Amino acid sequence: MTERFEPTDRTRLTRKPQRGSYDKAVIFGILDGGLMAHLAYVVDGQPFCTPTTYWRDGDRLYWHGSAAGRMTRAQAAGIPVCFTVSHLDGLVLGRSGLTHSALYRSVMAFGHAAPVTSAAAKRRAMDAFIGGLYPGRSGEVRPAHDAELSAITVLGMTIEEASAKIRDGGVNELEADLSADCWAGVVPLAVTLGPVQSDPRLAPGVPVSPSLARYVGGGRLEEALFSNRKQNRGRVDLS
Amino acid sequence: MTERFEPTDRTRLTRKPQRGSYDKAVIFGILDGGLMAHLAYVVDGQPFCTPTTYWRDGDRLYWHGSAAGRMTRAQAAGIPVCFTVSHLDGLVLGRSGLTHSALYRSVMAFGHAAPVTSAAAKRRAMDAFIGGLYPGRSGEVRPAHDAELSAITVLGMTIEEASAKIRDGGVNELEADLSADCWAGVVPLAVTLGPVQSDPRLAPGVPVSPSLARYVGGGRLEEALFSNRKQNRGRVDLS
Repeated sequence: MTERFEPTDRTRLTRKPQRGSYDKAVIFGILDGGLMAHLAYVVDGQPFCTPTTYWRDGDRLYWHGSAAGRMTRAQAAGIPVCFTVSHLDGLVLGRSGLTHSALYRSVMAFGHAAPVTSAAAKRRAMDAFIGGLYPGRSGEVRPAHDAELSAITVLGMTIEEASAKIRDGGVNELEADLSADCWAGVVPLAVTLGPVQSDPRLAPGVPVSPSLARYVGGGRLEEALFSNRKQNRGRVDLS
Repeated sequence: MTERFEPTDRTRLTRKPQRGSYDKAVIFGILDGGLMAHLAYVVDGQPFCTPTTYWRDGDRLYWHGSAAGRMTRAQAAGIPVCFTVSHLDGLVLGRSGLTHSALYRSVMAFGHAAPVTSAAAKRRAMDAFIGGLYPGRSGEVRPAHDAELSAITVLGMTIEEASAKIRDGGVNELEADLSADCWAGVVPLAVTLGPVQSDPRLAPGVPVSPSLARYVGGGRLEEALFSNRKQNRGRVDLS
């Protein structure tokens, strides 16, 4: 596996190229810390942008949905997809309107959707998904019935091209504005975890799943996801 | 203004219609608590999904970018856009793989992008954007130079069709699985605010901007945004 994606006309950052990266380590790092992607695709000339959960295996991205849904039916035909994941890291307030900004890290990945067709492959894909979020969880739950599996479509996409875009740091101010009598700075943002809530119908004496060990109230979702997926990597053979 | 968007083939929820809403109060509530939208649009047959900050004025949505950027140049031609905002509210762990889920609220809005052309209108639009995030902030900062304004493109879109999709509550379990010796429950998620960080180059004695009063460390971004935009609504005439 090469270490970077080749920049192309679709992925090359035309503006502020210093914010761009084509390194797989950077791109995979952003992807592995996220839970929700937004997918752009075209049906009858109309663009759609659908949010969906996802997982990654090497250069391949996976997501799923109801087999009866609009997105899954359209994408199962192998259409082009732009797969975007973004993390919002902060608000930036400068000393002029136009130096107000946001801190973020995002990835745009391009490819063609393809359905995972066999029941066995779908089962492995869903195990990799659940196991990446909650290591060991697949061994705790009731295995999926075949009818349940046929009611969902699992889609995969090999990343053909991808780039990351990162705006970090603080206020980018014009030198002439620095002495202004105006506050400037950053408000950090993060997706954080609340305390775990047990289903009120839980059978008596069932402890919280050990697969949630990294989901500690007050912690960051991104760190838990990244570590869990790292731990689970390679446990399921999706090839 | 009517109170709901008419469902259409593009916006009608085909799956789990009970999760859908076409009420403007619901749709605007989701939009006004978000900072980042994902926009799907098509350039030369290729779908793109670009994250961007945004603001709302009645039935119109606004966003902006560098006048030299790919997205702004393409969209300024008036192409169709699918504008999606999503909030991730939690992880759901059921007693079988397929009752694992996520809690979310999302809006898909369809329309056609159009540039805000005059310098005066762009200035008002940016004032509405900044003022919605930070009430009163426009009066604190150095006004934009004309050259700065010409370097950005402000885009607007009248919402022609829109729907909200909401998955809330807890675990949706099959009755037969309820007695299983398996933990089930919810991990709540929220975008939270960190403590405000002053720019290290701040002029001596400048206090934190009062426009940040609702950005309290540990609080939720969504609540601050929703309240600030409500307070600022109608302050700038964008008609």
